[in-house]
Amino acid sequence: MMGRKALDYEELNENVKKVQYAVRGELYLRASELQKEGKRIIFTNVGNPHALGQKPLTFPRQVVALCQAPFLLDDPNVGLIFPADAIARAKHYLSLAPGGLGAYSDSRGIPGVRQEVAEFIQRRDGYPSDPELIYLTDGASKGVMQMLNAIIRNERDGILVPVPQYPLYSAAISLFGGSLVPYYLEEEANWGLDLVSTRQSVAEARSKGITVRAMVIINPGNPTGQCLSEANIRELLNFCYQENLVLLADEVYQQNVYQDERPFISARKVMFDMGPPVSREVQLISFHTVSKGYWGECGQRGGYFEMTNIPPKTVDEIYKVASIALSPNVPGQIFMGLMVNPPKPGDISYLKYSAESKSILESLRRRAQIMTDGFNSCRNVVCNFTEGAMYSFPQIRLPQRAMDVAKSAGKAPDVYYCLKLLEATGISTVPGSGFGQKEG
Amino acid sequence: MMGRKALDYEELNENVKKVQYAVRGELYLRASELQKEGKRIIFTNVGNPHALGQKPLTFPRQVVALCQAPFLLDDPNVGLIFPADAIARAKHYLSLAPGGLGAYSDSRGIPGVRQEVAEFIQRRDGYPSDPELIYLTDGASKGVMQMLNAIIRNERDGILVPVPQYPLYSAAISLFGGSLVPYYLEEEANWGLDLVSTRQSVAEARSKGITVRAMVIINPGNPTGQCLSEANIRELLNFCYQENLVLLADEVYQQNVYQDERPFISARKVMFDMGPPVSREVQLISFHTVSKGYWGECGQRGGYFEMTNIPPKTVDEIYKVASIALSPNVPGQIFMGLMVNPPKPGDISYLKYSAESKSILESLRRRAQIMTDGFNSCRNVVCNFTEGAMYSFPQIRLPQRAMDVAKSAGKAPDVYYCLKLLEATGISTVPGSGFGQKEG
Repeated sequence: MMGRKALDYEELNENVKKVQYAVRGELYLRASELQKEGKRIIFTNVGNPHALGQKPLTFPRQVVALCQAPFLLDDPNVGLIFPADAIARAKHYLSLAPGGLGAYSDSRGIPGVRQEVAEFIQRRDGYPSDPELIYLTDGASKGVMQMLNAIIRNERDGILVPVPQYPLYSAAISLFGGSLVPYYLEEEANWGLDLVSTRQSVAEARSKGITVRAMVIINPGNPTGQCLSEANIRELLNFCYQENLVLLADEVYQQNVYQDERPFISARKVMFDMGPPVSREVQLISFHTVSKGYWGECGQRGGYFEMTNIPPKTVDEIYKVASIALSPNVPGQIFMGLMVNPPKPGDISYLKYSAESKSILESLRRRAQIMTDGFNSCRNVVCNFTEGAMYSFPQIRLPQRAMDVAKSAGKAPDVYYCLKLLEATGISTVPGSGFGQKEG
Repeated sequence: MMGRKALDYEELNENVKKVQYAVRGELYLRASELQKEGKRIIFTNVGNPHALGQKPLTFPRQVVALCQAPFLLDDPNVGLIFPADAIARAKHYLSLAPGGLGAYSDSRGIPGVRQEVAEFIQRRDGYPSDPELIYLTDGASKGVMQMLNAIIRNERDGILVPVPQYPLYSAAISLFGGSLVPYYLEEEANWGLDLVSTRQSVAEARSKGITVRAMVIINPGNPTGQCLSEANIRELLNFCYQENLVLLADEVYQQNVYQDERPFISARKVMFDMGPPVSREVQLISFHTVSKGYWGECGQRGGYFEMTNIPPKTVDEIYKVASIALSPNVPGQIFMGLMVNPPKPGDISYLKYSAESKSILESLRRRAQIMTDGFNSCRNVVCNFTEGAMYSFPQIRLPQRAMDVAKSAGKAPDVYYCLKLLEATGISTVPGSGFGQKEG
């Protein structure tokens, strides 16, 4: 009698329905079911190191605990369980955040923390950074979503996204009603960027009436684990300049580098090194987070983005939209401040902090080596060395019979294989097709 | 030479540009400037009690501090500065969140905390609640945005919003490209809901080709401070049933009630009390938060929404979209668990917790009385008694000359008046027109 209601499936916003989200897709749901039935499941579908037993760094946790419970600062016994530099640092952040962790901050984040981020960027790149152009966010994903929402007007706006890609981008582009324009990373060239084929992707999109407006790079790569060379970044900045593209530089794995030949270098540094016109013309947004690196503080949801060559009126619009949800969570902001401004040599907590960091990074590096060696020692499996980030992306050559069985079960071969792996071993993975990779 | 770039103002998503956000608008920006110049500013533009000196409740902060620093649980001195029930509760949450605060949770929030929320709702309403239909969010605003995004398909989809209204709704509806359909609260009837005029609003929207799909109620009211009576809620549920509207019940001020004649009663309880067909047919989303009440933990960004009569396929779609940004911040989830499951009589911390809560609530109640009495004692000012929430919405009758001066300065009279108040006293307010109120 009543007709359909707005929250009936058929009536929902089509863009919401179009979203596909592989890392929490069919595999994840089946794994969660099995877990409920009592099976022990190892989730590898998303980079979540603390869930797999990585211990948090002690110093930042001490500081944030004290900020949460500022009355401890007046407790005569506090010195028995907290070191003096953690106490001093907690007082520092409480002085930057009047009202403490329980008050909304400015929607862009606490000014003093944005200042710490600007100083970190300047130390890293050798070029000054303006805290007014740095916005703190609830993790990097929220920042990426804000920027894509500002850029995408309709389905004729295209965003270049590397494939294999992290599904955040495809999902957010669907949600905002834009078009994903894939460019392929070359498995044979250690997942390097091939601009010839990227130009083809742009031309192809144009022939379909799509204006490509922005390009995403993920460096170090997720899920492919490569570090882009300086020459490669220079090429792609020239490309963005020529094609008039905003560059969205997802650099959340900048601390996760497992070899010395190809260190992380930020898109912003390369851009300023190149000088004009590129350094003055290319609109660049750079993203970072406390969820990766040796911090791995995913659950705290701390992140930032920095805007370079973005007109002030646009910066104000981004501020206005950030204001709708009032402010990013304040504890996550403090974690960001601590990450960009960690204990220094001579500080009481320095030795412990650096020993803990080194041990996590070495363990990640060791595991990167074990993973790629392990994959490559298997019959019918090949995998590039994981230079950075937290992932390996092996190619597994399936026998024809396995492909036929999958087909008759109505599943893509890799999805079928991952489901079988899950049922047999409890290891929950993400099939390569979930990252948009070509067949094979 | 290059043509416009995607992040030039002219090229931005029009919906982003259309957003107006009064509580962080012209007044707030001017106040921030004055603060930078060294003037002491009292911000009243947004409910942010800790920023105005309200102290946090001790028990939840102790628990979350321990969860942040779980190594303290092994420290032999921990009992000197933390009570035993806070230690036990921290262990409880760490057992619910494997990986602790540094791990992403399920995108819907930690299952054990959602269970605590469900038990709270059942105690409050007398009807069972299903944790699978409760999603935790980074504050209530994020939940509101998720739901509006799912409902709004295009500019012909209308959302009924009370006026005067909290600008979150107008801003989010603009951002998602829908149409705000105002319904007016009656200042003369203590900001009650007048369904005759609401029906007119719906008819008027329809005549413009707009399908009204959902209705927002804010109870207790923001910015108007009223509590809706049970009869009024029953009327509006019947109205939603007849008009086939989703009801979005913003109930974030449910603890902020300053009189005994009209206690808070949830839309969900009234709906179940009414029985079928209303209790089975009306699609209801109810929102709550840790930012209000006597908690006021705004900066922690903890919230939830509960879905009633929403089809399972839609529930899955909402989950999928929540997954894009991985998970709400975990400390905020713990605060939510603590708010719905506070210390009980007999617990070590109970007396302190209830004394602190009572003192905050009494202070808010006293101030509600002082504010409305104060406003009403001024010449040319009238204000309804603030029954709940944290705001008063006075009407100030300006002399004709003041209106003329404002007009010649090119400002709305109330904006001009608020700017003058700011410059003269440092008190930063929000003009009534920012809430969409009728002239006068």
